[in-house]
Amino acid sequence: MVVDSIINALRNALGEGNFPLHEPRFTGNEQHYVQECIASTYVSSVGAYVDRFESELAAYTGARRAVAVVNGTAALQVALQLGGVKENDEVIIPALTFVATANAVQHLGAVPHFADSEEYTLGLDPRALRDWLKSVAEPAGDEYRNRQTGRRIKALVPMHTFGHPCDLEGLLAVAHDYRLNLVEDAAESLGSLYHGQHTGTFGLLGTVSFNGNKIITTGGGGAILTNDDRLADHAKHLTTTAKLPHRWDYEHDEVGYNFRMPNLNAALGCAQLEQLPEFLASKRRLMGRYQAAMKDIAEVRLMTEPSNSDSNYWLQTLVLVDAIADQRDGILQATNDAGLMTRPAWRLMHQLAPHQECPRAPLPVVESLAQRLINLPSSAGLA
Amino acid sequence: MVVDSIINALRNALGEGNFPLHEPRFTGNEQHYVQECIASTYVSSVGAYVDRFESELAAYTGARRAVAVVNGTAALQVALQLGGVKENDEVIIPALTFVATANAVQHLGAVPHFADSEEYTLGLDPRALRDWLKSVAEPAGDEYRNRQTGRRIKALVPMHTFGHPCDLEGLLAVAHDYRLNLVEDAAESLGSLYHGQHTGTFGLLGTVSFNGNKIITTGGGGAILTNDDRLADHAKHLTTTAKLPHRWDYEHDEVGYNFRMPNLNAALGCAQLEQLPEFLASKRRLMGRYQAAMKDIAEVRLMTEPSNSDSNYWLQTLVLVDAIADQRDGILQATNDAGLMTRPAWRLMHQLAPHQECPRAPLPVVESLAQRLINLPSSAGLA
Repeated sequence: MVVDSIINALRNALGEGNFPLHEPRFTGNEQHYVQECIASTYVSSVGAYVDRFESELAAYTGARRAVAVVNGTAALQVALQLGGVKENDEVIIPALTFVATANAVQHLGAVPHFADSEEYTLGLDPRALRDWLKSVAEPAGDEYRNRQTGRRIKALVPMHTFGHPCDLEGLLAVAHDYRLNLVEDAAESLGSLYHGQHTGTFGLLGTVSFNGNKIITTGGGGAILTNDDRLADHAKHLTTTAKLPHRWDYEHDEVGYNFRMPNLNAALGCAQLEQLPEFLASKRRLMGRYQAAMKDIAEVRLMTEPSNSDSNYWLQTLVLVDAIADQRDGILQATNDAGLMTRPAWRLMHQLAPHQECPRAPLPVVESLAQRLINLPSSAGLA
Repeated sequence: MVVDSIINALRNALGEGNFPLHEPRFTGNEQHYVQECIASTYVSSVGAYVDRFESELAAYTGARRAVAVVNGTAALQVALQLGGVKENDEVIIPALTFVATANAVQHLGAVPHFADSEEYTLGLDPRALRDWLKSVAEPAGDEYRNRQTGRRIKALVPMHTFGHPCDLEGLLAVAHDYRLNLVEDAAESLGSLYHGQHTGTFGLLGTVSFNGNKIITTGGGGAILTNDDRLADHAKHLTTTAKLPHRWDYEHDEVGYNFRMPNLNAALGCAQLEQLPEFLASKRRLMGRYQAAMKDIAEVRLMTEPSNSDSNYWLQTLVLVDAIADQRDGILQATNDAGLMTRPAWRLMHQLAPHQECPRAPLPVVESLAQRLINLPSSAGLA
């Protein structure tokens, strides 16, 4: 039975005990920085840790600027707004993603337009997308409209699934040809490089997440990355209630958001960022262990980083061959019953009630993939 | 000169040194709880401190339920959505409020409709509002429309300015007669009672804020209060991505928000809530000191709690008589230059560019008040 082989392989890699899918790890300066933050009384929207976290995150990713916000969804919503997305525009996103990608679009009153992914990267497929746009997009002035809905198609949001960089080169070319602003959802890929450059820094703007399940966490948090100072300044302004600087006057010049990251959370983030290289190394070792343990199971393969990419291996992922797709739920059941926490890929966006009326390309690859992906225990420190 | 009398009075009340407008105070279990939270690894969206904070906040306010969220703006946005506010509805809010009240309405695609306040409470004036609605609201089925704009008027949002409860009894009667859902913006009034009952618990839903400048803080945070279990369950669901409970499946049944309060922030909140009675007592003592120090300055009065109310005295407030309204900026300048941080009331909502096209009642009282209010150093622990 494949399920028994998988459980044996997981035990060989992990040993005995219960293993959650992904646990944060606080083995650095977390307690120290957070204590200092509370002692300073600057726990809220202004503080030295926010500035430091933003500057260290920019340095780490190579983005010119990073703007810390309250979570990854907020980051993406604001990045899309700064990317020119307006009410009733369409935004192309993968059907295979966490619901936050689609929600961020909806929060702007815009419409997600779902596209297919590649089996190889789990990310948007530029060739399939180009074919689809060729059939559905028509020029309207300098931009393109969806001829089926009449709506402007304004932006393209690649997402780096489970940390694996997608084909950014191909997607940038499609974005260029169809006048789409590319905004990267790098929520899962902090530490992942594409051709040696950090994910999240290829488009007009990019976003990352520091939710509790991510490779590093601030409790809840996210950030907007950009190489454009004007966009970064605007992101900071919009996410801090759009208040104009003044010694006492309260003038706000646009409808802003209360999306700033509290200094308390940034303190945790500074400590976590210091440990990111160690977490990356540990996750890579864990992938090696899983590979060794799984190598004789013909019906499954482990996701490995696409060529020319360095993945953060955020969530280790098993891909079942077609022939055993119908065994997925049994594998989920048996592994979870054994204390080895696993989960399937997210339900595809177009299959969720709140998004099911949204436009979509043909989705053969993700409809197959969604039945065949299983995430494995992936915490840093397991190997 | 009035300005010199005011500075002398402030020095008599506060002593020498620099005094910010409002500093948080961490003299309880803050370090202990936050350390324990980090050690538990549950710093993010699920955790014991979130549950405890919600249940202790409900117990403290007397609300049947409290749902902790990421900030007060998010709390109000979701409370309004649960109060039936839809895109293009109008929501009556005070013109004299922090911009978050108006932004929360705008984030739903709804339209703020500004109303006047009472000099006595600084909150919405039910008599003026009733007169205004008599002239502008026309019945449409079971509800009322603004005859000037054609839009439905769906909700009424009283805000308890600087912690002073407004005339809830009068406003509840107006809401009843015009079929408006009353949603209380109690962002500033944690600890304030109206007829012995906690503010935020009178309407269908109420909201509070724990931003760094509030009477207690979670770094950033807010909560939705309600006595309706169904609304509370829905608030929790909507603010946590609307995911249906399942061992592994990712089904979301509506467009949800990522608005949960991280456990790290709730840990701080639990410690702060324990000290709230002490903070309230200190702020009341400070008001007494300011009153004694200001009693001989004929041109100013201190805001005191309305009758039948217990105010939290969140921000101590000086009201200038009309005759010296033109000296306000000079007083702000001189006090801030002296290290005594003061600030005026917020710029009125209808005078801000992003909200200036919104409908409004006549606003004579707030247009006068806005020139005559000065907040004084108000931190707990000053007296």
